[in-house]
Amino acid sequence: MAKLYFRFGAMNSGKSTALLQAAHNYEERGQRVLVAKPLVDVKGDDRVVSRLGVTRPVDFLVGAEDSVRQLFHAAAEPGEHDERLHWHLPVSCLLVDEAQFLTAQQVDDLMRIAVEEDVPVMCYGIRTDFKTRAFPGSARLLEIAHTLEELKTICRCGRKALFNGRTVDDRFVFDGDQVAIDGVAVGYESLCPACYLEESGGKLYQ
Amino acid sequence: MAKLYFRFGAMNSGKSTALLQAAHNYEERGQRVLVAKPLVDVKGDDRVVSRLGVTRPVDFLVGAEDSVRQLFHAAAEPGEHDERLHWHLPVSCLLVDEAQFLTAQQVDDLMRIAVEEDVPVMCYGIRTDFKTRAFPGSARLLEIAHTLEELKTICRCGRKALFNGRTVDDRFVFDGDQVAIDGVAVGYESLCPACYLEESGGKLYQ
Amino acid sequence: MAKLYFRFGAMNSGKSTALLQAAHNYEERGQRVLVAKPLVDVKGDDRVVSRLGVTRPVDFLVGAEDSVRQLFHAAAEPGEHDERLHWHLPVSCLLVDEAQFLTAQQVDDLMRIAVEEDVPVMCYGIRTDFKTRAFPGSARLLEIAHTLEELKTICRCGRKALFNGRTVDDRFVFDGDQVAIDGVAVGYESLCPACYLEESGGKLYQ
Amino acid sequence: MAKLYFRFGAMNSGKSTALLQAAHNYEERGQRVLVAKPLVDVKGDDRVVSRLGVTRPVDFLVGAEDSVRQLFHAAAEPGEHDERLHWHLPVSCLLVDEAQFLTAQQVDDLMRIAVEEDVPVMCYGIRTDFKTRAFPGSARLLEIAHTLEELKTICRCGRKALFNGRTVDDRFVFDGDQVAIDGVAVGYESLCPACYLEESGGKLYQ
Repeated sequence: MAKLYFRFGAMNSGKSTALLQAAHNYEERGQRVLVAKPLVDVKGDDRVVSRLGVTRPVDFLVGAEDSVRQLFHAAAEPGEHDERLHWHLPVSCLLVDEAQFLTAQQVDDLMRIAVEEDVPVMCYGIRTDFKTRAFPGSARLLEIAHTLEELKTICRCGRKALFNGRTVDDRFVFDGDQVAIDGVAVGYESLCPACYLEESGGKLYQ
Repeated sequence: MAKLYFRFGAMNSGKSTALLQAAHNYEERGQRVLVAKPLVDVKGDDRVVSRLGVTRPVDFLVGAEDSVRQLFHAAAEPGEHDERLHWHLPVSCLLVDEAQFLTAQQVDDLMRIAVEEDVPVMCYGIRTDFKTRAFPGSARLLEIAHTLEELKTICRCGRKALFNGRTVDDRFVFDGDQVAIDGVAVGYESLCPACYLEESGGKLYQ
Repeated sequence: MAKLYFRFGAMNSGKSTALLQAAHNYEERGQRVLVAKPLVDVKGDDRVVSRLGVTRPVDFLVGAEDSVRQLFHAAAEPGEHDERLHWHLPVSCLLVDEAQFLTAQQVDDLMRIAVEEDVPVMCYGIRTDFKTRAFPGSARLLEIAHTLEELKTICRCGRKALFNGRTVDDRFVFDGDQVAIDGVAVGYESLCPACYLEESGGKLYQ
Repeated sequence: MAKLYFRFGAMNSGKSTALLQAAHNYEERGQRVLVAKPLVDVKGDDRVVSRLGVTRPVDFLVGAEDSVRQLFHAAAEPGEHDERLHWHLPVSCLLVDEAQFLTAQQVDDLMRIAVEEDVPVMCYGIRTDFKTRAFPGSARLLEIAHTLEELKTICRCGRKALFNGRTVDDRFVFDGDQVAIDGVAVGYESLCPACYLEESGGKLYQ
């Protein structure tokens, strides 16, 4: 029986690269994958973009109100002039980028795809926001995924980064919305708990 | 720098045994540990009890309003007629049983003990309740712990169990409070997602 | 399809406790396990003995020339006056203690039991001897096990121990046979690489 | 204190991609890495080449008789017209591709670089050859690395691949040298134990 995986990491831990490598591994074996991501992530429009320079289009985008299961079934259907690799085969794996932006119900649907339809679902995403709170999708994945795997990156101090500090004008801020409003020039820096606590003056949970 | 660990598993995955083994490993090396657990867990009163038959007293109990940091410092102080093993040494490790019952703020305090006082903190607990939702302590540990390690047990079907089904009169129930009210004869059974979905009629998130 | 697991750790990392807990988890679910160990390990005669004080008899001992598969099948047969728990059921799991003392061929047989007979095989053992070289069974398990899981313990310095230093008269020695000859009073201490290198004067591979 | 890591996987599991991502993560944080690989691997000459199309030059090649520690120190020295990223900084991480081709002594040297010079060393390599036996470098890394992490890929049957079958003229062969002689047109296919055993007629250890 297939499983639901959550491969999480701080920003810039190579999540999209890992997703693209996994897709490549399946396709090289002659197996078909589908790649999805939430609509809210507009970083790469309808593409998965790795900081190493690799990219590929997604097969479907998931809006906040969408049924991920319906979208999955629609995307799995061969199209009339389908040019996707292995498009005539059944889907061997569903890969989801930026999975932190899914709703809890959508994550539950991913579990049903894994368990009831026997298709492995691999979700890649950020664990927590700049206030160290989980996003809706990551909170649910941390609760129910069969397997939790960490993708690692480093803090400026050399330790493993866990958290994502938000900066405005190069200064760390600890108040604001979970997803920054368009037009505000925010940046992010992956931090270990020690460096985060130093910047926040000891604050964690808001 | 020390880390905050969350070793999670379904019910009956051997969490207390693992905690007692970790304590034994430290003490055998001549190092001192403290063992704590939340007050709400009354299963073993002020003891950690393993289903293998091993047991030991806790060093302090944590109430819902308590500062776990103050309790830790108080317990770390040698007492007047202290008979605890290695009581005169500084504490090398803090072990917390039933950590799912901690509050988010208490988990944040455990992170500060690890990072600011350089004492490793190992939390053992259940990931989710009978509705597949995280407990307050496990939700926060899943968000911020340096390391997430799963302790495994099996479902009746032989697969890995993730969830904890609740039974009343040997029938599965999916409504009720997160912690069962005293006097109601509830039971629990560790289930894999497939068996859970079969029992719940496809329900996950309530 | 079942898997071959290798749960390895330095001495005193709680391997036997973990094995006994796994056996308990299966039996509590009404499933039958078999427990085996190599004959060469005479520490507990025909019992698995945990330093926490828990113990249980093994179902079969494996001599250096034995076919572990034949022994497994013989032990899986119900006996005439069988009093073992769930003796009438097919075997759900084979647990092997002190697996470092198996031969490479015996480990290959365990892989066949997992893959061809669909019975999970969980091997617990030490990774390396006092010269930091793998034992025959651990070398083979490190090569082919489906899953490698580390059981952790600490060095005297507080770091994770990987190696097993041998002492004679409380002094570390770095020459001698892999398994100490009977009658020589040797001891062992779990060490991290830094403390090992300090004791050995920088020597690793002999 | 820094650690020695072994990130192993079957062929085509994305090891070089993972190495290049790790290098990128360090350099993006303004930290300096060195990348090395054994001379015997001529696949990419003096470059690390990922199947995703990403590539970068290595900082030094390691011959069978070389001291990896001397090479590391020489490469860490800034050159006269050094154009490498962050060349003026101390080295924050050493990354080794195709580490299975190192000698045991060279792996021991990598442990000394980690422990005595406090530089993390991340080795990426194949676990076993086409006969399911470890390569010299992987055998030693499996014995002593602080951390063993598996990079996964799939078998043609959809299960996790562990082994690397060798083909000549599209037929699996189970005899021959560990490294194929130049000029012989061999291929490799990553296989799970079940598919490997099916192809080999039940043979594992030769």
